[in-house]
Amino acid sequence: MAGIRDVAKRANVAASTVSRALNNSGYVSQAAREKIRKAVEELDYIPDTWLRNLYQQKSAVIGVIINSLEYPYFATVTRFIEQKLAENGYSMMLCATQNSKVRERIFFDMLKRGQIDGIIAEYLVLDDKEYQHIQKPVVTLDRHLVDIPLVCSDHLTGGKLAAEHLIEKQCKKILYIEDNSSYLASTPSYKSCLAFKETLDNAGITPIPCRVNWKEEEKDYFHTFAKKTLTLHPDIDAIFAADIPAIALFNEALRRNITIPEQLKIVAYDGSPWLKQTLNTLTCIEQPFEQLAQKSVDIITSLIENKVITEKVTVLPIQFIQGESS
Amino acid sequence: MAGIRDVAKRANVAASTVSRALNNSGYVSQAAREKIRKAVEELDYIPDTWLRNLYQQKSAVIGVIINSLEYPYFATVTRFIEQKLAENGYSMMLCATQNSKVRERIFFDMLKRGQIDGIIAEYLVLDDKEYQHIQKPVVTLDRHLVDIPLVCSDHLTGGKLAAEHLIEKQCKKILYIEDNSSYLASTPSYKSCLAFKETLDNAGITPIPCRVNWKEEEKDYFHTFAKKTLTLHPDIDAIFAADIPAIALFNEALRRNITIPEQLKIVAYDGSPWLKQTLNTLTCIEQPFEQLAQKSVDIITSLIENKVITEKVTVLPIQFIQGESS
Repeated sequence: MAGIRDVAKRANVAASTVSRALNNSGYVSQAAREKIRKAVEELDYIPDTWLRNLYQQKSAVIGVIINSLEYPYFATVTRFIEQKLAENGYSMMLCATQNSKVRERIFFDMLKRGQIDGIIAEYLVLDDKEYQHIQKPVVTLDRHLVDIPLVCSDHLTGGKLAAEHLIEKQCKKILYIEDNSSYLASTPSYKSCLAFKETLDNAGITPIPCRVNWKEEEKDYFHTFAKKTLTLHPDIDAIFAADIPAIALFNEALRRNITIPEQLKIVAYDGSPWLKQTLNTLTCIEQPFEQLAQKSVDIITSLIENKVITEKVTVLPIQFIQGESS
Repeated sequence: MAGIRDVAKRANVAASTVSRALNNSGYVSQAAREKIRKAVEELDYIPDTWLRNLYQQKSAVIGVIINSLEYPYFATVTRFIEQKLAENGYSMMLCATQNSKVRERIFFDMLKRGQIDGIIAEYLVLDDKEYQHIQKPVVTLDRHLVDIPLVCSDHLTGGKLAAEHLIEKQCKKILYIEDNSSYLASTPSYKSCLAFKETLDNAGITPIPCRVNWKEEEKDYFHTFAKKTLTLHPDIDAIFAADIPAIALFNEALRRNITIPEQLKIVAYDGSPWLKQTLNTLTCIEQPFEQLAQKSVDIITSLIENKVITEKVTVLPIQFIQGESS
């Protein structure tokens, strides 16, 4: 295997010059740098790209943290992030923590060590304090951390539009499905629930909360959840829920011969491609998946290039899509 | 920034010893190695982990090539691969080529340069020849390459079981949906189509082929496809198709008041979680997603550790799952 001495010989420079060039420590002329670089490539010196990255001071790899690809929201945003990163010459290292603090910590450690240049965090379980003074390129998607740029959808408008739509449709007994974890309450997307409730409250309607357990691993969890929910609340006339529970509730209602939208109206939140698998199209609030990805990638690449980020929070517009379920 | 000289000073060894240790070229005593390693860490020498990986001769990163996360098969297998890799101390770099030869080539280049230790290829578009003499850890999933270990499902049995089921159910006019690309014909999964046809042929039934264009980007492609297909073939009594077209055809049949399973029977192939989003459960041939991932990860880690792989081809059993659509 070729060593630094071989590189020095080939490049016709001193070994110490090679060291300085490879370590970016001390002065090395541009001409010598080029000769070393060429020698390194010709000799197929093993940490070839690592060395090149040393020259560039970057690994060209961005880490992306999610909970799990099994959730449509994460699968959809992540798909676009990978695409946008590739367009910018970056590779994506994916870490699906599934709520593991250890995995999250190891991943941020890779950032500190320079194995990855930046992190786009779609999901975080560690305490905010762990991210203070991080001093590395990090952008969060739908998760607020002090001093870290945040990209999210306009959840306030999302929740408000869903409520206004159901008020307009004369709904009175409205069920809304919330995440059964303290995690959600700390995310910007929780604002959709708050705005939904507030808008209905202002119209004199008190919506009924119902909790869903996303961490539930049981195979037919959502099917069972939908059955229980409709048995427990036989007299509701509207439901507001995230895509997966919305689909499960829609299917269970049809199986019970509840007519949709006449007897029951459903508005789904997220608008992921999974919604295309239902018998009728569901009315939904659609998150701007591609734009969320684009903006996160724009910010992380700017941070890596040491550009100044003026906007700490980017809120992207959501869309109300009328389907056949309301 | 700390350079090699600083490390040498701290470790109390010659700079040339540090070079030899870092490049693994020439003899360095274990004691010196330890002192160098400690100095490197104490000085926060930048390519910390890269250097450590040099010691270990690995990056601890595995590349995974897929077509796109938007397809349930890739999303599901990839999710398990990431999980199994993490359990083995590896990170996953994901590359969704979306049929780009350039991206595939760049990714394999990263393997040659040592930026990643191995590749699990779920999808490949480059010519087989490009992978001859690769001499690096590579395992393919459902894609046959000469001399490269392959992991796949038992598609022959999959196609056969689907056909036998429909024969038993007295179906006579059977439609089967094929991929409209030359790519599929080169994959092991195409065997499911061949076995399906052959089993029906042997029973004196000639199934009707119908082509679906997976690369179609149009938003409602599968919806339109299902409408056209059922209009073109109003008298069929059974359909065999991959999950997404199967779901679209199932929904369209229900919208046309075709009773399922009485008038029309549907068997889906893959059994991804997307099948859970339908009104009734679809009968399906389920691929062993988790085992496919586990086996690929077992092989790639063995190859990295220079263990001998005796089985060049691993065929994992599929499962027939009776649903409400047949």
